[in-house]
Amino acid sequence: MTPAPSHADLLVTGGIVLTMLPDAEPIFEGAVAVVGDRIAAVDRSDRFSDWTVDRTIDARGGIILPGLVNVHTHAAMTCFRGLADDLPLMTWLNEHIFPAEAKLTPEKVYDGALLACAEMILSGATCFCDMYLFEGAVAHAARDAGMRAVVGEVLYDFPSPGYGDIEKGFAHTEDLIRLWKDDPLVTIAVEPHSPYLCSPDLLGRAAKIARTHRVPHVIHLSETRAEVEQIQERYGRRPVEHLAELGVLGPELLACHCVALSESDIDLLRRHEVKVAHCPESNMKLASGIAPVPDLLKAGVCVGLGTDGCSSNNDLDLFSEMDTAAKLHKVATLDPTVLDAHTVLRMCTAEGARALGMGDIIGVLAPGMRADLIVVDTDKPHMTPLHNPESQLVYSAGGGDVATSVVNGRVVMADRELTTMDVEAVMNRVHSIAEEIRRG
Amino acid sequence: MTPAPSHADLLVTGGIVLTMLPDAEPIFEGAVAVVGDRIAAVDRSDRFSDWTVDRTIDARGGIILPGLVNVHTHAAMTCFRGLADDLPLMTWLNEHIFPAEAKLTPEKVYDGALLACAEMILSGATCFCDMYLFEGAVAHAARDAGMRAVVGEVLYDFPSPGYGDIEKGFAHTEDLIRLWKDDPLVTIAVEPHSPYLCSPDLLGRAAKIARTHRVPHVIHLSETRAEVEQIQERYGRRPVEHLAELGVLGPELLACHCVALSESDIDLLRRHEVKVAHCPESNMKLASGIAPVPDLLKAGVCVGLGTDGCSSNNDLDLFSEMDTAAKLHKVATLDPTVLDAHTVLRMCTAEGARALGMGDIIGVLAPGMRADLIVVDTDKPHMTPLHNPESQLVYSAGGGDVATSVVNGRVVMADRELTTMDVEAVMNRVHSIAEEIRRG
Repeated sequence: MTPAPSHADLLVTGGIVLTMLPDAEPIFEGAVAVVGDRIAAVDRSDRFSDWTVDRTIDARGGIILPGLVNVHTHAAMTCFRGLADDLPLMTWLNEHIFPAEAKLTPEKVYDGALLACAEMILSGATCFCDMYLFEGAVAHAARDAGMRAVVGEVLYDFPSPGYGDIEKGFAHTEDLIRLWKDDPLVTIAVEPHSPYLCSPDLLGRAAKIARTHRVPHVIHLSETRAEVEQIQERYGRRPVEHLAELGVLGPELLACHCVALSESDIDLLRRHEVKVAHCPESNMKLASGIAPVPDLLKAGVCVGLGTDGCSSNNDLDLFSEMDTAAKLHKVATLDPTVLDAHTVLRMCTAEGARALGMGDIIGVLAPGMRADLIVVDTDKPHMTPLHNPESQLVYSAGGGDVATSVVNGRVVMADRELTTMDVEAVMNRVHSIAEEIRRG
Repeated sequence: MTPAPSHADLLVTGGIVLTMLPDAEPIFEGAVAVVGDRIAAVDRSDRFSDWTVDRTIDARGGIILPGLVNVHTHAAMTCFRGLADDLPLMTWLNEHIFPAEAKLTPEKVYDGALLACAEMILSGATCFCDMYLFEGAVAHAARDAGMRAVVGEVLYDFPSPGYGDIEKGFAHTEDLIRLWKDDPLVTIAVEPHSPYLCSPDLLGRAAKIARTHRVPHVIHLSETRAEVEQIQERYGRRPVEHLAELGVLGPELLACHCVALSESDIDLLRRHEVKVAHCPESNMKLASGIAPVPDLLKAGVCVGLGTDGCSSNNDLDLFSEMDTAAKLHKVATLDPTVLDAHTVLRMCTAEGARALGMGDIIGVLAPGMRADLIVVDTDKPHMTPLHNPESQLVYSAGGGDVATSVVNGRVVMADRELTTMDVEAVMNRVHSIAEEIRRG
C-alpha cells in the first residue's frame, strides 16, 4: 500500500460519478483525480479539497463515466455516409460500396478515419475497434486524434488493395504488430473478414498469429441467415461450428454481429469464452436480423456494442446505439425488462473493454485504470428532470450531450471543442473525397 | 394571379431546401420567403436578390425543411422522464405512473408541457398532438412556447382528476373547443382514451362531438395484443372492428399505435380513411410489438410519427424516431428497402400534417402554406460528407442539429436559443416537481 497521492494533474469534479464497477452506487457530487495516464482516485468531491491540482474540469450538472467503447466499426467508411441507403444488400455492396472502395488510398483512409475519430470523440467514445483496408493509416489517425484503438488489416482469400495476396497480408499484419507494439493507444489485431471470405487455412493461420503475439483476433461471424446457409452448404456445418472445428474459437476472439445463432452456437461461444460485438443499428438497417443478445447474456457471454461502419448506420453515436439496443430486445422478446439501462451501459463500458481484451486497463473508473472518461452534460431540456442517471444516459442522452472527453489522461475534447485536430480541415478533405466518389 | 410579392418579413436562405412536395427535387442554394404567418415563395436564393427583406436567416451549410409534426405525445409526462424504466407494464403503470399522475395539477401540467415544448422545438418539431389531463394548461403552454398544437382532454369511464365524471368531460371538451376556436396555433380535439377504458356510449358520443365541431378525434387503438384479447372477450370483436361497429371510424380519427392489426383491421382503417400515429420507440420500450407500417402504407393509409410520452421513450426527438422507424421495419420485414428515408421524412412532415387534418396548411414548403419550417445544420463531423440530404436527416441527424425553427412565421428558436421562454426557469420548476414526486 502506498499513501494516497495528494496531487492530481487533472481533477474532474462536481458531477455524478458512475464508476460502472459491479453494484457500485452513483457518487453524487463526485470527482475523478488523474495522474499521468492513470486514474489516481475516485471519491466525493469534498475529499479532494486539500489536493493540489494542475487542471480542474467543472462537471457540475453532468455525469462522469468511463469513456464508451465502440467494439466494431470501419472508421474510414465515413466517406460513404449516405452514399447508398435503402437498397438490397447486393446492390448496395456491388454497385456502390465496392466501386467506391476500389478508389481508396491510405491518404483517404487516414482522412476518413480521422473524421470518424472526431465524430466518435464528440459522441463519447474513447476507444474503438476497427477492421478495414490500409489499417496503418487508421492507426495513425487514432494516434493523431488521441483515441485508444484496436486496429487490424482485413484479411481474405482474394488480393487486397491494401497489401496484395494473402501471404503479404499475414506479413503486413505481423509488421503492424511489431511496429505498434509499445504504443500507449494503438493495439494491432489479427482480422480475418469472415468464414465466407476466408479459407479454413487462412482462418487457422490468423488464429495462430493472434495467439503467438497475444493480440486480439476479430472476425465477422454469423451476420445473416444467408451466411449460415452458405457455410453449411460449403462445409456441412454452421459458421460457429466451422470455426470451432478449425480451433479458431478462443477467449481472444471477438466475433462481430452473431445475428444468426442456434442454441448450440451460443453454447460453443460460451465454452470457448468468445466475445461478441453487437451492432443492432447496422443489423436493422441492412435487414440482417436481431442478434439473440438476451440469450447470450444469460449464457454469460461477454457482449460489447458497436456501431459498425457509417454506410450501414449512418453515424458512430454509441448513445443512439445503446438506446436502440435496449429497446430492440424488449420488443423482440416482448419483455420490457430485458437489457435494462444498467446492462446496456455496462456493454458500452466495462464489457466493451473486456471484449477487446482491455478489461484490466479501461471500462471502469477505479484507481490504477487508464484515465479514459467522459462528462455528459445533463443541464438540458431533454435531460430534465433527472430521476435516474443510468436511464438518462441510455434513453435520453445523445452523443451531442458529451461535453468533455479524456483519453489516457489527456483532454481530447473540452466544452465540445476537439483539442487534437483541426476538424474543419478534416471535414473539408472528406468533402473532397466524397465529391471524387460521386464523380465516379 | 397576383404578381409575386417583392417583400419578405423573413428570408431563410442559402440552404438546401426540401419542400417535401411529392417528387420535388432538392433546391440547392435555396430560400424560403415568409410574409406574416405564410410562406410567400420558395425558390433558388439568387431569385430573391431584388427583394426587400426585414430579417434574413443564413442557412448556408444547412437543410431547410418543413417543421416536424409529432402526431402523438403526452407532453407533461416530461416530469416522469426516467422515473421508472425497464419494468413490467403493470408495475410501471400501477406502482409508478398512476401514483405520480395522482399528484398532478394544472400548474404542474403547464410546466411539464412547456418543458416538452422547449425540447420539441430544440429537436425540430413545430407541431404536436397531445392527449392528457388538464389540457387547457397544455394549450396555454403551446401558445406561450409559440408551437402549433392539437390538444384534447383525455376521456374515460372513471372520474378524471381533470374534470370529474364523464358528463363534465364532454362539457369541458366542448368548452375548450369554443374557447380556442379562433386560435392561430391551438386546435382542440376530442380524445377518448381507448376502447378498453371507454364504454361504447362514451366512444359514440365523442365521435359525434368531433364531427359536430369538425375537430380531430384521437384515440389509442390496438396498442397491444392484450388489448385485442380483452376487447374480443368483452365485445366479441377486435378493437378496430368494435369501433367500426360503433360508427366511430372516419377520416377525422387519428388512431394511435395500431400495433396489433389483422389484415381486415387494415382494410377497415383504409376504407374509413382513418389516420394512424406510429410510435415505434414507445412500442419497443414497452414491449408492445411492431406496428405493420409497411402494410398500412401499401394499403394507402396515412401514417404519421409520434414520440409518445417521455416516460416510455424517454425523449421527444423525432429525428431519433425517424431513424428508429426506418431501421425497425427493415429488420422486422427482413427487407432493407422498406420505409426509405424519403418515406419516413414524409411521415414526419406532409403525412403527419395530414394525420392531424392540417395537410392543407402545414407539412410542405409551398406558397400560401403556414410558415412552419426548420433549418438543420449539416456542418458537423457526423453529417459529413453530404451525399444525400434525405438520408442525412433520417440516418445521421439528431434533434440537436436543428439550428433554427419558425412557427407560423415567428422565429421561435435561432442558433439553438429559444426566443419564447426562459428555459432555465422552466427546467428548475420541473426539477422541483420531480423532487416532489420522488418524495412520494
